[in-house]
Amino acid sequence: MARILTGIQSSGKPHLGNIIGAIQPALRLSAQSNEPSFFFIADLHTLTSSRDAKKNKENTLQIAIAWLACGLDTNKDVFYLQSDVTEVCELAWILSCFTPFPMLANAHSFKDKSENLSMVSAGLFTYPVLMAADILLYDANIVPVGKDQKQHLEMTRDIAAAFNKQLGETFVLPEPFIQKEIMTIPGTDGRKMSKSYNNYINIFDEEKLLKKAVMSIVTDSTPLEQPKNPDTCNVFALYKLLAKPEQTQDLKEKYLEGNFGYGQAKTMLFELILEVFKKERESYDYLIKNQDFVQEELKKGASKAKEVSSKVLKRVRQKLGLRV
Amino acid sequence: MARILTGIQSSGKPHLGNIIGAIQPALRLSAQSNEPSFFFIADLHTLTSSRDAKKNKENTLQIAIAWLACGLDTNKDVFYLQSDVTEVCELAWILSCFTPFPMLANAHSFKDKSENLSMVSAGLFTYPVLMAADILLYDANIVPVGKDQKQHLEMTRDIAAAFNKQLGETFVLPEPFIQKEIMTIPGTDGRKMSKSYNNYINIFDEEKLLKKAVMSIVTDSTPLEQPKNPDTCNVFALYKLLAKPEQTQDLKEKYLEGNFGYGQAKTMLFELILEVFKKERESYDYLIKNQDFVQEELKKGASKAKEVSSKVLKRVRQKLGLRV
Repeated sequence: MARILTGIQSSGKPHLGNIIGAIQPALRLSAQSNEPSFFFIADLHTLTSSRDAKKNKENTLQIAIAWLACGLDTNKDVFYLQSDVTEVCELAWILSCFTPFPMLANAHSFKDKSENLSMVSAGLFTYPVLMAADILLYDANIVPVGKDQKQHLEMTRDIAAAFNKQLGETFVLPEPFIQKEIMTIPGTDGRKMSKSYNNYINIFDEEKLLKKAVMSIVTDSTPLEQPKNPDTCNVFALYKLLAKPEQTQDLKEKYLEGNFGYGQAKTMLFELILEVFKKERESYDYLIKNQDFVQEELKKGASKAKEVSSKVLKRVRQKLGLRV
Repeated sequence: MARILTGIQSSGKPHLGNIIGAIQPALRLSAQSNEPSFFFIADLHTLTSSRDAKKNKENTLQIAIAWLACGLDTNKDVFYLQSDVTEVCELAWILSCFTPFPMLANAHSFKDKSENLSMVSAGLFTYPVLMAADILLYDANIVPVGKDQKQHLEMTRDIAAAFNKQLGETFVLPEPFIQKEIMTIPGTDGRKMSKSYNNYINIFDEEKLLKKAVMSIVTDSTPLEQPKNPDTCNVFALYKLLAKPEQTQDLKEKYLEGNFGYGQAKTMLFELILEVFKKERESYDYLIKNQDFVQEELKKGASKAKEVSSKVLKRVRQKLGLRV
């Protein structure tokens, strides 16, 4: 069976866009495999951009809770913090000795930043090596990646292949699972939903805040009586993503008939979110009050991860004459 | 008290040149401090140049034995393999996020190699960051360095200072202890004694081999009867390094008197080596037959090292919001 591995960024509380666009597809993919999937929160990678201890802690917790609330099954899958299995840093060092300097210097992600090199850290430069270690440490077969990470996965394969060639079969070469271009989830202002635009809907917010966010969605000024165009409406676009086909059809007809205001549409969207994410919201409320449980889940996940990583690292160390 | 820390290269069996020029001065320096010194064999750094498991293992063992045979006191000092305390790789990753890319790109050690970048690994590029982690992980105060490593120690201080500035006092800033220009130890052909010239004398060799090496020292063709110049003779130069002043004076007179051949001088040097390194040679013979003991000493050293490193790493992780 194929082992799926996914790294999760730890840069903020996931919003509706992340949940529909990333978390749910990842969990669906994992559900197709009988083998445990590996989901880790990449909090060591986060250090390349954030050194705010309080923020880092809070974000990591929020993300862990979001994934658990969305149904990540810790009995089947392995869910852990990258920083709880620091063997990954040892492997990263070893792999760096098999990574040609120009491979990193030519990476898109580095080149994009190379105009302002004084702001680039060595960590950002070697980021792809730590990512390779994240993957190779667990004999992962399949790594779902967006287009922007495709090159990094190719580098992982190249580094693994170089090691295998020099020292004999050691690493499993992972295959990318290129995620289809996710439909863009519109934010409350019609642009792509993003934390940086502050146009996001957080489905875990309490009702009052959630309603406020939904009510703030930007619409045009068509008067109440007149028919409205569903295809250009942000409210409708979000509704469609969450609703059953017959619900969508029903709302579409209301738009086209007229005598139906955007306020009403927003109320329907708000209620739909409450309905669709009822279980997730309840789960979130429970977990946010039981953070120790979340931490214990992550610790258990790290133990399970170490069972695999220790075997792989043993293989690697043997090949290099290090103590095993 | 000041804590001294020294990394030991693991690239081959130490010869007479290493012993007089590096091991003995380091042990003498350490003996001046009541605080345990930290001596580690840098076997992770070795991976930047050698991936031969058998050779790496053998070299590490030989070096460990040589240091122990020369009197490294594991009851006082902490003697360990870098790869046995892999927390150093975690710290290296963290430090890399505080290391500006240009700092590494401008390092002499990298610039020297940058004409042939395709042969340079990422590991070689980030070498100074792992070295910084080696030092900072143990709150080392004093690091004896040769001239070639001086810049690396400055980088260690810069990285530590950057971290401290951003997140508050965390790391001890190490002071370099610039070793005086060691007298060049001549090899059997008169050039600097070096493994790469194959002109070295291994004081741990069995007598027959050792004698052969001493007898192979290149001398001029002054006939037996004639006086000889001690100041241009390789045999005399080595003898002087090991002998008491009165012994040196005695040999000098023999040279100047004539009727004294180089063969006789070589025999005197051979016998002096046996005498001066009697204890070391016995110790070596014991340890080479008791390799398990050596391994146990290294393991105990790693445990002691971890007592310190875990505290330092805890400080670091707290500052970054990672689990402690």
